[in-house]
Amino acid sequence: MKPFMDKDFLLSTETAKTLYHDYAAKMPIIDYHCHINPQEIAENRQFSTITQVWLGGDHYKWRQMRSNGVDESYITGKDTSDFEKFEKWAETLQKAIGNPLYHWSHLELQRYFGITEPLTKDNAREIFDRCNEKLATPELSVRGIIKSSNVDTICTTDDPVDSLEWHKKIAEDDTFDVTVLPAWRPDKAMNLEKPDYKDYLARLEAASNVTIKTFEDLKEALIRRLAFFDSMGCKVSDHGINEVYCSPATAEEIEAIFAKRLSGSAVTREEELKFKTAFLVFMGKEYHRLGWIMQLHYGTRRDNNTLRYNQLGPDTGYDCINQVACASELAGFLDLLNATDELPKTILYSLNPVDNAAIGTILGCFQDSSAIGKIQQGSAWWFNDNKTGMIEQMTSLANLGLLANFVGMLTDSRSFLSYTRHEYFRRILCDLIGTWVENGEYPCDMAFLGKMVQDISYNNCVRYFGF
Amino acid sequence: MKPFMDKDFLLSTETAKTLYHDYAAKMPIIDYHCHINPQEIAENRQFSTITQVWLGGDHYKWRQMRSNGVDESYITGKDTSDFEKFEKWAETLQKAIGNPLYHWSHLELQRYFGITEPLTKDNAREIFDRCNEKLATPELSVRGIIKSSNVDTICTTDDPVDSLEWHKKIAEDDTFDVTVLPAWRPDKAMNLEKPDYKDYLARLEAASNVTIKTFEDLKEALIRRLAFFDSMGCKVSDHGINEVYCSPATAEEIEAIFAKRLSGSAVTREEELKFKTAFLVFMGKEYHRLGWIMQLHYGTRRDNNTLRYNQLGPDTGYDCINQVACASELAGFLDLLNATDELPKTILYSLNPVDNAAIGTILGCFQDSSAIGKIQQGSAWWFNDNKTGMIEQMTSLANLGLLANFVGMLTDSRSFLSYTRHEYFRRILCDLIGTWVENGEYPCDMAFLGKMVQDISYNNCVRYFGF
Amino acid sequence: MKPFMDKDFLLSTETAKTLYHDYAAKMPIIDYHCHINPQEIAENRQFSTITQVWLGGDHYKWRQMRSNGVDESYITGKDTSDFEKFEKWAETLQKAIGNPLYHWSHLELQRYFGITEPLTKDNAREIFDRCNEKLATPELSVRGIIKSSNVDTICTTDDPVDSLEWHKKIAEDDTFDVTVLPAWRPDKAMNLEKPDYKDYLARLEAASNVTIKTFEDLKEALIRRLAFFDSMGCKVSDHGINEVYCSPATAEEIEAIFAKRLSGSAVTREEELKFKTAFLVFMGKEYHRLGWIMQLHYGTRRDNNTLRYNQLGPDTGYDCINQVACASELAGFLDLLNATDELPKTILYSLNPVDNAAIGTILGCFQDSSAIGKIQQGSAWWFNDNKTGMIEQMTSLANLGLLANFVGMLTDSRSFLSYTRHEYFRRILCDLIGTWVENGEYPCDMAFLGKMVQDISYNNCVRYFGF
Repeated sequence: MKPFMDKDFLLSTETAKTLYHDYAAKMPIIDYHCHINPQEIAENRQFSTITQVWLGGDHYKWRQMRSNGVDESYITGKDTSDFEKFEKWAETLQKAIGNPLYHWSHLELQRYFGITEPLTKDNAREIFDRCNEKLATPELSVRGIIKSSNVDTICTTDDPVDSLEWHKKIAEDDTFDVTVLPAWRPDKAMNLEKPDYKDYLARLEAASNVTIKTFEDLKEALIRRLAFFDSMGCKVSDHGINEVYCSPATAEEIEAIFAKRLSGSAVTREEELKFKTAFLVFMGKEYHRLGWIMQLHYGTRRDNNTLRYNQLGPDTGYDCINQVACASELAGFLDLLNATDELPKTILYSLNPVDNAAIGTILGCFQDSSAIGKIQQGSAWWFNDNKTGMIEQMTSLANLGLLANFVGMLTDSRSFLSYTRHEYFRRILCDLIGTWVENGEYPCDMAFLGKMVQDISYNNCVRYFGF
Repeated sequence: MKPFMDKDFLLSTETAKTLYHDYAAKMPIIDYHCHINPQEIAENRQFSTITQVWLGGDHYKWRQMRSNGVDESYITGKDTSDFEKFEKWAETLQKAIGNPLYHWSHLELQRYFGITEPLTKDNAREIFDRCNEKLATPELSVRGIIKSSNVDTICTTDDPVDSLEWHKKIAEDDTFDVTVLPAWRPDKAMNLEKPDYKDYLARLEAASNVTIKTFEDLKEALIRRLAFFDSMGCKVSDHGINEVYCSPATAEEIEAIFAKRLSGSAVTREEELKFKTAFLVFMGKEYHRLGWIMQLHYGTRRDNNTLRYNQLGPDTGYDCINQVACASELAGFLDLLNATDELPKTILYSLNPVDNAAIGTILGCFQDSSAIGKIQQGSAWWFNDNKTGMIEQMTSLANLGLLANFVGMLTDSRSFLSYTRHEYFRRILCDLIGTWVENGEYPCDMAFLGKMVQDISYNNCVRYFGF
Repeated sequence: MKPFMDKDFLLSTETAKTLYHDYAAKMPIIDYHCHINPQEIAENRQFSTITQVWLGGDHYKWRQMRSNGVDESYITGKDTSDFEKFEKWAETLQKAIGNPLYHWSHLELQRYFGITEPLTKDNAREIFDRCNEKLATPELSVRGIIKSSNVDTICTTDDPVDSLEWHKKIAEDDTFDVTVLPAWRPDKAMNLEKPDYKDYLARLEAASNVTIKTFEDLKEALIRRLAFFDSMGCKVSDHGINEVYCSPATAEEIEAIFAKRLSGSAVTREEELKFKTAFLVFMGKEYHRLGWIMQLHYGTRRDNNTLRYNQLGPDTGYDCINQVACASELAGFLDLLNATDELPKTILYSLNPVDNAAIGTILGCFQDSSAIGKIQQGSAWWFNDNKTGMIEQMTSLANLGLLANFVGMLTDSRSFLSYTRHEYFRRILCDLIGTWVENGEYPCDMAFLGKMVQDISYNNCVRYFGF
């Protein structure tokens, strides 16, 4: 029996151990997609309890507590103490056998707090205290965590109207040498079906200094903001879309739909699809012009629990996988951009793991010599960000394309302790490759393999994103 | 090489062996969902041949015989002998490598008949005779089988119009201490598109003593039958639905649709969806009021072979998985009940195994403190009730929620020998957990793990169903 | 660690090794579905470079080169040398860890060229030269390859208008004893939505000597061509359909749709579905009458890259999996044929691997005593033709039906070196069965198991196709 989460955690062969310890582990981290707050980096926030870091906003954990029948007062409530919440979490976590949260939480305890024993209901008090003590030290300030995690680049997620003031402050601060860049997420400018769409446009007008009366105006406003983001080092965009859109329409149709919406009328489903297609085609061409990367995330159904949404708002643990099966739309949409040779480098993510094979074959239709691995399937995302999800995504990648060109892991996280997910990913990657090699399915050329895992861990990102 | 199906069958690690033999194996069985005939329990039926038990109504086996080119006369025919049928089955079974029927059949031979050699075409006669001899003993009466299987509770599947007379008889019989309860399956009251719907309503009128002229009347009739079932100890319902419905409509619309149907007109597809949505929302709220569990089974396409349906009728081996991808409807339907805080404890099953991940994320949106593991994904169902299906369902559960809260296995069977499927499940469960532990992915705390497998095998059911 | 691709490649247990080496390896090959050119067999083509064989038309390899950022001039270009192309391929291949091309290429190097070292960028020149030298020998003429691969029957893929002149020449040539038969692929006669449909009908008129004014005429023309193909030994058909059609219509409707198309009008989507349903039902009944096998391939989306399609045409590496989820249509379509007892032996393939379970349950609804394993799921197809794809397909088969009756592997290839894919398949098959046996899940009866793998490798095909 292997010891619980020791140094060879998840590494089942000698080849895997060598690949991880001698090659992958030492590589820096580029976290090209996350949801951390740049203000907390700029201000170098110090947390006072582990509950703040772990349970302050992590709806992954909240979901599990609810699964365990924990009362909401111990989850998002205000009237329970940080320790009470932590204790409920400890009790829940013990039941999370086979769940990535079990591994993530213990990797974080080990790497940042030096705690190697499993967290249980019984030792919750002791571990709570030890964590909090450590959190008071400079090593566990936000910047301390980032530095000790060997992170060299972070991309946050930002709205086109954002001032990026905190990014400026961080860039100007000579005492902190990690690159913190914005990422462009213009969902609100696309979602014209939302009731507050016109309010958003007003904010965009203010930020861009463009009066928006037409879709052409909207594009102009976005172009100005793109230029600003570009000047701030932005290289990557992100789109959170429920499904993939491929409903081409004429420029006149799009202007008519936009005018209809501005007049206060609701748009039809068909109009919505046409507008979103036009919007994304426009954005894709701009990314191509700027040399940015386009990220498309689809397959979600959000805010499913109306009762809780009315109490807690969005991003509180009530989202799910939708089954949208839009292979045809995805291939068609990419072709719309490719037809004029304006398809940017693109990373595709579906929340539904059964889309792996379809995506793997679609991206293969749009590769060309403008970049190595130009179109990528993103790392196993959100609900799939677990051992089996990662193995399935990488196995699918390897079956259908070139695993060696994969840009690899991102945290997608709201927490500063999540950098250990890169370690988790690298261990799984090395184990997968090690198993193939020890099984005689690939030559045991350690120099070549070592470079391959270093590329997937880090070098491919450097080349692909060009930060 | 491990011996064929010995005591450590499917247990590949020492941890798995300990978990199974020292913890899981000794737990009683709650078979909360099956299709056995309560009359046969009441009358303590004794079978005269193994063919009656195995091949009398088991369309799983019939399908395999047809796959093997066996003539229908040896399957459902009347003019072939029990031995001739058994021999054809033996020959077919030898080809069923990797099929759950191979394991189920041999577990049944081992546990109930003491036969440990593999069944082949060559020893079919001998095994036929030995089985029949044993079947003549009291130990292999229906009650003998149930008792020796350590079953403490059985839920049958019953129509609202059923008199439950056999359940009464069993309950009144002091010589048999196993709890045999009805389960409420009101599909026929919902399926207004069926030609014989009005005939069914007439039966329901008779059973409930309510004249049904409106949907309100139908609800009243069902409420009365619910009360009767509740008085008989019923705690669980079951719905066999082709897909999940989420087409809300006003009460007036529903009454109009119902009136249209009563007048003899056919309803449109849209009307059907609205009616079924209203019906299921009504039922769900009633289950919530009564503290019952709602089971939703979806993703089937039934009676696909018209030629055979006309000869043999339903449930004869001609059903298949449908690909309905109704994540959105499922989330929407649960929200309809949850919005008024009337969502009962619910168990979700799709016949399509690719729905695992979507279901696992949907149920996580509706967990709350009213019950531990309030919304469950049911155990791998029907065509998925095999080793890989179970592993995938439990791995998905563990990835997305808390495996420790799982209510576990049910037989869904028409045969009294199927209780060994609980053993099969427990072995697979223990092996899965044992592998994680021996791989260093979870601490080797045998007391905690032992309790976990006992909970999943039995205790969770006790708590969840509250029989 | 196992050596790289040695004699026990992919065989992880002693049982697997025995099953492969003592049973499976020695069986001849029936390649019942491929895309090789019969003219090259008739003329016994000799290739002058390995680039011609490997990269002349193999879009699987082209896709990977594009994934690696290789310029199109080294892929389909005319201005680069055979060695330059080969070198780019060697460099690409090194990155293809976990990809079937890595294994296929090295199996081909080993079996046909006696080259056991891994191909790398560094040894590309040397291996290029050694391969070309060997290609100049009679052993590596087309016929030499076929003979040394122990192939006894090949089915090509042919249009109903084809003269089959090369098949005739091969049959008449006493110096070559491998059976080379046509397969009937009438897609062009079905696809009435295509702009050149009437041109095709003109060709069919010429080939059949039937003037086609009505759908009845079309059927008559096809019946004559079927008779010709049948006289040439054809036993198997193939349909490349995007999705499965089940839109029954009256004979009058079909004639009206056909007349509309002949008049030059475009048909609606609904009309297209009705016509294709009628066409396939007609064909299926003909196959039943003739005792032929029907192959249905669905789930593709072709020619997705418009830019490249305009430059390179079809079958150049720009196809993908479509997500069509047509379980309901598939069950319905098979029932249309079965209702009159005219369902032929049928092999079903979906390009989307998530359809495995649905297909496995659908085919079980139409088995009968007219053939053993009458309805088959085809071997893992195209993008799924890799180790995981094969394991998943065979595991699904075994879970839902009788693996022992499987007709097994086909190359689906355009290359004469692809017969090693049968070896690849047989190794995976033997390993899967060996693992089950060594795990105690099936008795270790080597005679029975050996026969089973020989049946799946060869004998089942002999019985099923009846060539």
